[in-house]
Amino acid sequence: MTDTNADLYIYGRNPIKEALTHEAEQIEKIYVRNSLRDSQLSDIFSLASQHRIPISHVPGSKLYSLVGGVNDQGIVALMSTVSYLDFEVWLDDVDTSDYPAVLLLDEIEDPHNFGAMLRTAAAAGISAVLVPKHRRAPVNAAVYKTSAGTAGRIPVVRTGNLNQAVLKLKDAGFWIGGLDMEGNQDLWELEVDRPLVFIVGSESSGIRPKTLEHCDYRIRIAMENQVESLNASVSTALLCYEWKRKR
Amino acid sequence: MTDTNADLYIYGRNPIKEALTHEAEQIEKIYVRNSLRDSQLSDIFSLASQHRIPISHVPGSKLYSLVGGVNDQGIVALMSTVSYLDFEVWLDDVDTSDYPAVLLLDEIEDPHNFGAMLRTAAAAGISAVLVPKHRRAPVNAAVYKTSAGTAGRIPVVRTGNLNQAVLKLKDAGFWIGGLDMEGNQDLWELEVDRPLVFIVGSESSGIRPKTLEHCDYRIRIAMENQVESLNASVSTALLCYEWKRKR
Repeated sequence: MTDTNADLYIYGRNPIKEALTHEAEQIEKIYVRNSLRDSQLSDIFSLASQHRIPISHVPGSKLYSLVGGVNDQGIVALMSTVSYLDFEVWLDDVDTSDYPAVLLLDEIEDPHNFGAMLRTAAAAGISAVLVPKHRRAPVNAAVYKTSAGTAGRIPVVRTGNLNQAVLKLKDAGFWIGGLDMEGNQDLWELEVDRPLVFIVGSESSGIRPKTLEHCDYRIRIAMENQVESLNASVSTALLCYEWKRKR
Repeated sequence: MTDTNADLYIYGRNPIKEALTHEAEQIEKIYVRNSLRDSQLSDIFSLASQHRIPISHVPGSKLYSLVGGVNDQGIVALMSTVSYLDFEVWLDDVDTSDYPAVLLLDEIEDPHNFGAMLRTAAAAGISAVLVPKHRRAPVNAAVYKTSAGTAGRIPVVRTGNLNQAVLKLKDAGFWIGGLDMEGNQDLWELEVDRPLVFIVGSESSGIRPKTLEHCDYRIRIAMENQVESLNASVSTALLCYEWKRKR
């Protein structure tokens, strides 16, 4: 993974099969030339489906626009520009003794918001950003650009089941705070003498009810002038920096 | 001005001439059908030029896409979705006795950032947002949408000469703080027992040197992981909410 604003693509059947076998986590999406017969790629389709990687069937001209005049064999994969960690692997290694904070982003769909959040989390000294494997913004060049190249400076951890991950984090000693405009704890009362997880939900509908049930705190940000909510990357920044201030 | 996410247009020669005469501040842009002879609109062009309102010469189909099948007489004006105040008028009326804070946004070009900033400023109880008449994002539907309809809840004040406005604000008793990643005062040391102006510069190059010279404080936000700057709407939010917290 190079430190660049450009999207990173790999192409050709064997390289992509290799990537699917050894680093499927890093593949964001696969593009297949729509004139290609499916039987030629059945092993690739089966691996992609197993890892729930989306496949797009596109004209050859689209592949050309992605990788230029190379022998792409009708298949191109968009690789992530950040290094993902697996949740279980990350959790096994996590050290809670210095009271880290972790940001859990559920259903953040806007790549610009996601990029800004990674950048702010890195700047605030947050330990890791957790995202669900599905229902999230792909980490593409737009995210990387908005993150001002900082996307690589903070571990991005992926988990298949968000609610189970939250329960495991609790078992590991983390306290769970959800950002909720109807919450009962004021942001400014946040206590940081414990390992913390901050959950931020989708821009439109907030944290899902089932996830909200697992929260030890529902954190509210004071607002005047009948403003009902803030931009998701703004709320996240206020949360991360409240934590940083108190450290 | 209705409370809506749609852009607001007026059309026809007389209505636009009327608007140019009585509320030129509210006109963002004028669209003229490119087949129209200039002599038919010379008085409008002269008024628009006087108020430095941009004019776009466009095909008739563009006008149709803006206002539909109305008798537009070849001319359409995009009206602002917020009510602008004139700087001198606003300054004459300003009450500094309860130590208000004002946000001065210079050269913020991204409408989404601008919208998020208006929303955050309103939520934090900032008294007004000052913008230069030129070099700024137009307050269009994108701004209004990002501001989540809050753009109308905070006065937006326009000034022709930003540096002169800063000097007048000083005369009126305001202290001037500029957001500057190389500043010498930490955000968390901010003192709020005085009227304050917060200046935020452009996303790419920060506050212009001449404006920076007028600043009483150059406010820095602490960052880890070699992150060099934050998204402009994120920094602005941290600044506004630091002020709000200390009130």
